[in-house]
Amino acid sequence: TIQHLFKEIFKMGLELQEDDHSKALLVSRKKKPEDTVISIKGEKIGNGKVSFIAGPCAVESYVQVAEVAQAVKNQGLKLLRGGAFKPRTSPYDFQGLGIEGLKILKQVADEYDLAVISEIVNPADLEVAIDYIDVIQIGARNMQNFELLKAAGSVNKPVLLKRGLAAQISEFINAAEYIISRGNENIILCERGIRTYEKATRNTLDISAVPILKQETHLPVFVDVTHSTGRRDLLLPTAKAAIAVGADGVMAEVHPDPAVALSDSQQQMDIPTFDHFMKELKGLTEKVGR
Amino acid sequence: TIQHLFKEIFKMGLELQEDDHSKALLVSRKKKPEDTVISIKGEKIGNGKVSFIAGPCAVESYVQVAEVAQAVKNQGLKLLRGGAFKPRTSPYDFQGLGIEGLKILKQVADEYDLAVISEIVNPADLEVAIDYIDVIQIGARNMQNFELLKAAGSVNKPVLLKRGLAAQISEFINAAEYIISRGNENIILCERGIRTYEKATRNTLDISAVPILKQETHLPVFVDVTHSTGRRDLLLPTAKAAIAVGADGVMAEVHPDPAVALSDSQQQMDIPTFDHFMKELKGLTEKVGR
Amino acid sequence: TIQHLFKEIFKMGLELQEDDHSKALLVSRKKKPEDTVISIKGEKIGNGKVSFIAGPCAVESYVQVAEVAQAVKNQGLKLLRGGAFKPRTSPYDFQGLGIEGLKILKQVADEYDLAVISEIVNPADLEVAIDYIDVIQIGARNMQNFELLKAAGSVNKPVLLKRGLAAQISEFINAAEYIISRGNENIILCERGIRTYEKATRNTLDISAVPILKQETHLPVFVDVTHSTGRRDLLLPTAKAAIAVGADGVMAEVHPDPAVALSDSQQQMDIPTFDHFMKELKGLTEKVGR
Amino acid sequence: TIQHLFKEIFKMGLELQEDDHSKALLVSRKKKPEDTVISIKGEKIGNGKVSFIAGPCAVESYVQVAEVAQAVKNQGLKLLRGGAFKPRTSPYDFQGLGIEGLKILKQVADEYDLAVISEIVNPADLEVAIDYIDVIQIGARNMQNFELLKAAGSVNKPVLLKRGLAAQISEFINAAEYIISRGNENIILCERGIRTYEKATRNTLDISAVPILKQETHLPVFVDVTHSTGRRDLLLPTAKAAIAVGADGVMAEVHPDPAVALSDSQQQMDIPTFDHFMKELKGLTEKVGR
Repeated sequence: TIQHLFKEIFKMGLELQEDDHSKALLVSRKKKPEDTVISIKGEKIGNGKVSFIAGPCAVESYVQVAEVAQAVKNQGLKLLRGGAFKPRTSPYDFQGLGIEGLKILKQVADEYDLAVISEIVNPADLEVAIDYIDVIQIGARNMQNFELLKAAGSVNKPVLLKRGLAAQISEFINAAEYIISRGNENIILCERGIRTYEKATRNTLDISAVPILKQETHLPVFVDVTHSTGRRDLLLPTAKAAIAVGADGVMAEVHPDPAVALSDSQQQMDIPTFDHFMKELKGLTEKVGR
Repeated sequence: TIQHLFKEIFKMGLELQEDDHSKALLVSRKKKPEDTVISIKGEKIGNGKVSFIAGPCAVESYVQVAEVAQAVKNQGLKLLRGGAFKPRTSPYDFQGLGIEGLKILKQVADEYDLAVISEIVNPADLEVAIDYIDVIQIGARNMQNFELLKAAGSVNKPVLLKRGLAAQISEFINAAEYIISRGNENIILCERGIRTYEKATRNTLDISAVPILKQETHLPVFVDVTHSTGRRDLLLPTAKAAIAVGADGVMAEVHPDPAVALSDSQQQMDIPTFDHFMKELKGLTEKVGR
Repeated sequence: TIQHLFKEIFKMGLELQEDDHSKALLVSRKKKPEDTVISIKGEKIGNGKVSFIAGPCAVESYVQVAEVAQAVKNQGLKLLRGGAFKPRTSPYDFQGLGIEGLKILKQVADEYDLAVISEIVNPADLEVAIDYIDVIQIGARNMQNFELLKAAGSVNKPVLLKRGLAAQISEFINAAEYIISRGNENIILCERGIRTYEKATRNTLDISAVPILKQETHLPVFVDVTHSTGRRDLLLPTAKAAIAVGADGVMAEVHPDPAVALSDSQQQMDIPTFDHFMKELKGLTEKVGR
Repeated sequence: TIQHLFKEIFKMGLELQEDDHSKALLVSRKKKPEDTVISIKGEKIGNGKVSFIAGPCAVESYVQVAEVAQAVKNQGLKLLRGGAFKPRTSPYDFQGLGIEGLKILKQVADEYDLAVISEIVNPADLEVAIDYIDVIQIGARNMQNFELLKAAGSVNKPVLLKRGLAAQISEFINAAEYIISRGNENIILCERGIRTYEKATRNTLDISAVPILKQETHLPVFVDVTHSTGRRDLLLPTAKAAIAVGADGVMAEVHPDPAVALSDSQQQMDIPTFDHFMKELKGLTEKVGR
């Protein structure tokens, strides 16, 4: 038992060190108590108000993106998403329009005065891509693509970092640390559901992750209701839950005609559904003063 | 391919049958479109307003239960929980006071004019227990204890049925069907978190289960924020999420002195914390008109 | 930091106690280093040799059970399984023949000189059931039905305890402790797959659980290859893995005509497949000297 | 119901297409029934015999690698692993020696006449790296780093592809398809445990994945026992299970002094333990004729 005591004292020493280590994370609230607020095209993200990001899963054409941009604009939103590089399970699925897609996004964004968010999947593409987009998205499958994280940490653009498919919250926080440790502190964390045994939804929205991330870090936290649930009928209630639990924003997919979408047709909203979605959520944010 | 076609037509026939089968579930909304409203001591559960159930994890003494009952009463609530039969992982942990515990609950409930909810774990105990309690709880570990479900279906008391540790939503619905098929339709479903790989919380609150259960069944749906998260600091935000997502009620554990509780000391609220919790949630329900 | 040190020393004290506690578990190897060997109809279970349990998922008729018993006998095996009380997800699925099923099992077992294993789901049924069966099975859904565990701990028959659908190994060990703490030490642990996100198999066989359970406890450990995988084509390779990893036995379902089985028709072997299965496994056990 | 019938016939059409699609996968056994055999330094991988890959988690120094290489050589093995680029959860953990590490591996491999396997994490590094290594490893965190997969598909070196932390078997197969679709068919699949709720092991070894992958694809399948279990005491039994279930090879980590290893110190074997491990496994492969 004396031996055990010494071992424990040694372990305690290690834990003290570890504790200091976690205290030292640049993303942690211990390091910086006040909220990080990121300003994109005049939209303040993380200042207590709820922000919205909407747009199609994948960029398919100028007309498709413009139609959604109009709807986004009509709702008074500022942030348009759209995928140009699509990481797809099968090599034979539509892989996105690539740089061509970014150009479409840029053109539409300029015309409608919106900011554009798009996923980058290859560190080598970053340099070119930042000329076209306002926010770099790092997708769930790349949350621990550390080379990509380092590259995103070295550019001067905000990054929206999605939680990995089966990432622990501590791993998610450390992934953000890879970015901030290279100098880029404009990071938005995005909960997007985790992989569990439950089949009723595409993933399981881990709503508790939001308050935990808000406590542990000073970064804004979004909820992607589309990928969390994979079900159009759950987008509205889960978006309400996200707002109530304290998320800084909600992300959802909108497509002029989901039935013919080249990806994720089951879960995107059409424009009238999106208008209803926004009306309901604005009602809620007004009531709760956010 | 012709052969395949015939096989598919055969399968289709099977699926059509299955579809009818699911249509026929007595708990399903297809069977009964209007919400089931359960009346307990004047509290209407499932009528659109949010109900609350609070109380200690385990009944430890008259004084302990009375103290919590006073706090529950002060908040204008009607539903007091407390465990008398405690299913515990280890046979050497505190197993609850049994019938003695039910008697304490009954006495306190009478004095404070509250309804009592308590878990029953053995079909053989049901007959005696119903003299002491107003709502029978069937716990997560017993969600597929079909003998207990059948027994609970045969008595004339409301049942609060918790989702199993790793139960699929479809299994949860079928467990409720065991109860209703025996004649008891006063069933409250309770989401209480599912088992996943994430270690930051005790379980992962599956918030999407609430709107799914509301769509699929006509039964009231509660969220147990205590067992979902296992963390006192997450009770309030997740309760807000539960209300926003459409839950009919919230369940939480309260103890006069959590530090000395005989079980679950890490996650119970003390009374001042509970008072704050209720004040915040009443603020929310008022704002959103529930 | 001094304060932290004191807290740690206090915690250490608690851990020391806990450590002693786990040392004290009656099922633990620390308590009893030598293997528990259970003798059933002359078959020694847990003595280093590999045992086999085979039989239909559910007892459907005398003829059906007898046909399988003949096949089991032909292979020189001693242990026949068959479900009389079937815990089923839906109340409208076939629930088993009950006592009638046990009588069929008993009759067949006597005629073929086999021992019978069957699941009991209600503590109240145990007393009657033990007249008909040689080994009491406690199923996955009842692994934490503590009243049933206590009842099984009080009778003088071996118990085969299956791991819960999503039970941790430590919970599984504690479930066994409920039985042994009531005086019955003839317990066979049975790994049967756990619930994960992977859909290619019905459950995920946790093969590592076998050596862990062998290290931590002195009890025999079986692998149920049928429920682990839910796929007939995986029964043989996983059974080989079970033997190689050190399991004391393998359990599998056999039905004279799986296509018309009243339950689990996708995963039971017909008799020629079973004969091939046994031939291959006997080849392996011979080669590895078990 | 007629409408339903038409919908089903339409769905059936889609499924038929999908079926054809899966038939068309280049990695599938439907496409190529015979086993792919990969020859590396005279070692035939996938020809029915069991191969072994051993080496330290991370390359730390010439002396460290040489010591392990000697042990690997002594056992008559051909394949030495060692990490030069280490994907680590925290940016502040040891990240590997990079190109310097590859040079050490190359030097040692030449001296001991071994083939070298090392992980590459950035598509941009591939071109340089292939001068130093014989097999490119793609790690679990990069299983769906599709840019890296495409890059690996374009070089003329065998690839060892690890299953993702929470990848479904179908996703794993599609990841391999990304490689083969670019022209590189020398792919070794490696099961390395999946993320589940169970905490007794670092991951849960999905042993059933081995026969499924062998059935579905024509590629060799390995089991990484070190990362599956994360426990030194489980390496030997799980390696035996891997061999019995039909794996083409086993991968394990070996370090001259695990206690001072810069990563994964809890799970690497020291050299005497490795010698014992190999002796036991050679005993088994001999007995079972593999």
